[in-house]
Amino acid sequence: MSDRADAAGPSRRHLLLGGAAAGAGAAALIGADALLRAAGGGEPAAAPAPPFGTRTVAFHGRHQAGIATPPQAHARFIAFDLDGGADRDAVRRLLRLLSDDAARLTAGEAALADTEPELAHDPAGLTVTFGFGPGLVERVDPAAVPEWLGPLPEFGHDRLRERWCGGDLLLQICADDPVSVSHAARMLTKDTRAFARVRWVQEGFRRARGAQPEGTTMRNLMGQVDGTTNPEPGTEDFAGLVWNRGEGGAAWLRHGSALVVRRIAMDLEGWDRLDRPGREEAVGRRLSDGAPLTGGAEHDEPDFAAVGALGFPVIPEYAHIRRARSADPAERIFRRAYNYEDAEGAGLVFAAFQADVDRQFTPIQRRLDELDLLNEWVTAIGSAVFAVPPGCGPDGFIGETLFG
Amino acid sequence: MSDRADAAGPSRRHLLLGGAAAGAGAAALIGADALLRAAGGGEPAAAPAPPFGTRTVAFHGRHQAGIATPPQAHARFIAFDLDGGADRDAVRRLLRLLSDDAARLTAGEAALADTEPELAHDPAGLTVTFGFGPGLVERVDPAAVPEWLGPLPEFGHDRLRERWCGGDLLLQICADDPVSVSHAARMLTKDTRAFARVRWVQEGFRRARGAQPEGTTMRNLMGQVDGTTNPEPGTEDFAGLVWNRGEGGAAWLRHGSALVVRRIAMDLEGWDRLDRPGREEAVGRRLSDGAPLTGGAEHDEPDFAAVGALGFPVIPEYAHIRRARSADPAERIFRRAYNYEDAEGAGLVFAAFQADVDRQFTPIQRRLDELDLLNEWVTAIGSAVFAVPPGCGPDGFIGETLFG
Repeated sequence: MSDRADAAGPSRRHLLLGGAAAGAGAAALIGADALLRAAGGGEPAAAPAPPFGTRTVAFHGRHQAGIATPPQAHARFIAFDLDGGADRDAVRRLLRLLSDDAARLTAGEAALADTEPELAHDPAGLTVTFGFGPGLVERVDPAAVPEWLGPLPEFGHDRLRERWCGGDLLLQICADDPVSVSHAARMLTKDTRAFARVRWVQEGFRRARGAQPEGTTMRNLMGQVDGTTNPEPGTEDFAGLVWNRGEGGAAWLRHGSALVVRRIAMDLEGWDRLDRPGREEAVGRRLSDGAPLTGGAEHDEPDFAAVGALGFPVIPEYAHIRRARSADPAERIFRRAYNYEDAEGAGLVFAAFQADVDRQFTPIQRRLDELDLLNEWVTAIGSAVFAVPPGCGPDGFIGETLFG
Repeated sequence: MSDRADAAGPSRRHLLLGGAAAGAGAAALIGADALLRAAGGGEPAAAPAPPFGTRTVAFHGRHQAGIATPPQAHARFIAFDLDGGADRDAVRRLLRLLSDDAARLTAGEAALADTEPELAHDPAGLTVTFGFGPGLVERVDPAAVPEWLGPLPEFGHDRLRERWCGGDLLLQICADDPVSVSHAARMLTKDTRAFARVRWVQEGFRRARGAQPEGTTMRNLMGQVDGTTNPEPGTEDFAGLVWNRGEGGAAWLRHGSALVVRRIAMDLEGWDRLDRPGREEAVGRRLSDGAPLTGGAEHDEPDFAAVGALGFPVIPEYAHIRRARSADPAERIFRRAYNYEDAEGAGLVFAAFQADVDRQFTPIQRRLDELDLLNEWVTAIGSAVFAVPPGCGPDGFIGETLFG
């Protein structure tokens, strides 16, 4: 029994930098493969990655950041209610203020009246994404409220609590570092003080940046691989599903999107009493690797027609992946969910983007509500819908298109 | 205005792996420096670091892990109260169960009755550190309670709330990934069900692993560099300050330690009303880089005798760094603190290890309580002291030395 030392990491790093690069100097020639696999063990060795804290994601652009951006490890969703006296001009001032500070903070610069500027220097991929509830849009232009912007239809399995529902303005703040999220949230919340009050705050987490190979689908706290069939950002498929086309009287939303935020409580105790075959049938996927029960690998197409020896479907009628699937390829959403855990329990901050809530989220959720065995263990306790304006240029502000 | 792309990272990684290592193959000879600085920009480029999720910290050893271990990004402190009926034998069974599962989980293996085994595979440097309150030690061996194990003396500035104080058993669970912490906490809490009830849970965070250069001193949420003068793990100085020598009738604590956990609420609103010179005088350090007000760099010794043009000390009498300092080099502690933020506010989960609380933490805190300008903005609202047993071997369990 000896004094402990961390297994792996430092020694290999030391060998690589100290022995190979620094010691041997710029003129040394060594095999790239040897360098990458220095110190043996079969595992590829790594040069110390440059700290990623300074990494930035552009705030300005056609679309807002934080949608197609690969999900960062930490998220905070803050919903605000506008004060009664906040009129159209006040909303404009608020949005300009928030846009300016969000641009600064996401660039790793202090906010305009930053009280802890040193905490702003490592944004760690910070994004700030704005969403508007019906209350905000009405105050600016009552004719501009899209039809789908409002509470979702009632679903039989929902047990909504007012404290997790609604909101006039949403800020989705994401970064790969919890300190970056905390600082940005504090500064942006200060900006709202003369205009609005915090309605609810939801905090979420995923695997840390760099913990798993890039592209690994997240697991939720029930242990399920969660989000396998998500459309791929950057593809036409994604663009068609996620970006609003500005139709139906809401031209201001062109290049924007719609965001559904649902707080889904998990009955982990109940789930833990179910055996693994029972869990896999509820989902329709293997727990070990997320492959459909009809076999293959995680991203293989499920064979919904396949039947077992007794003639029953291999993927049961009540399985989540069967119920979530539509024959219409336009009836899909882009999920960007986070785990949550608080004193009351654990679950999922389900966040999903789509061009049109009525045509995409609602029909999917209706099918799940009717018959999805997972309803036994998951319950929506919060729900809110937001219109997500397009991005803006350096001289503009998020929401400017709403002001005509 | 174009579609957004993340700034930095992927393209350089792609170039390095695609162009240099993979494309050119194992036989290629390239300059190490060129490899490390591929893609220009002056910044050192990096091979994609292997995912760190599989990284483990040894559970078994002379000392418990999670003390000298470099602080991971995420921590959860869970305090339990033993049930009335949990006698000496029950405590032994509980500790064996917890030790076995902690050994498994920290090795990246599923707990014995793990209900979500897939969540156990990426421990991300997970450590589980046990602390015993007086209630647990008394139940096993009333003669073995160290003198300092119990509530701290009352301090004038404390505003303690029962819900953040005390506890019979503490688990400090740390990892560089919040999912690893969440899963380990859930499995270990399940182990305690037949023996104990959760008394309080405190969640903490620091900068994400890899966000800042290694060795960067953390900043707390007031923006201060926090922990500059910490003793260095691995040195004799550290060993003398932190590891208990098993004196004073507590031979079972040899190679163990003592842990003080204080929940320190910060009045960030009040702090933000203070100007920067005022803040720097309260601390005695520059906010920008943590250097003492008498100049130099972060780790330079403060010159407490220096006076300014008007004859007043450069580092005021009430400055935190002056009040925290003792003339006796044995009167120091090892801090391993985390930021917290919840619906009620923000602050610090102050966690400090030392060999003897009465000789180390208490005199420091007395001086701070008497006169430390920071008391205006920081208030202890929780407090607990735990004896930290030594580590154990693969056949043993944490706390075995207490059973004689």
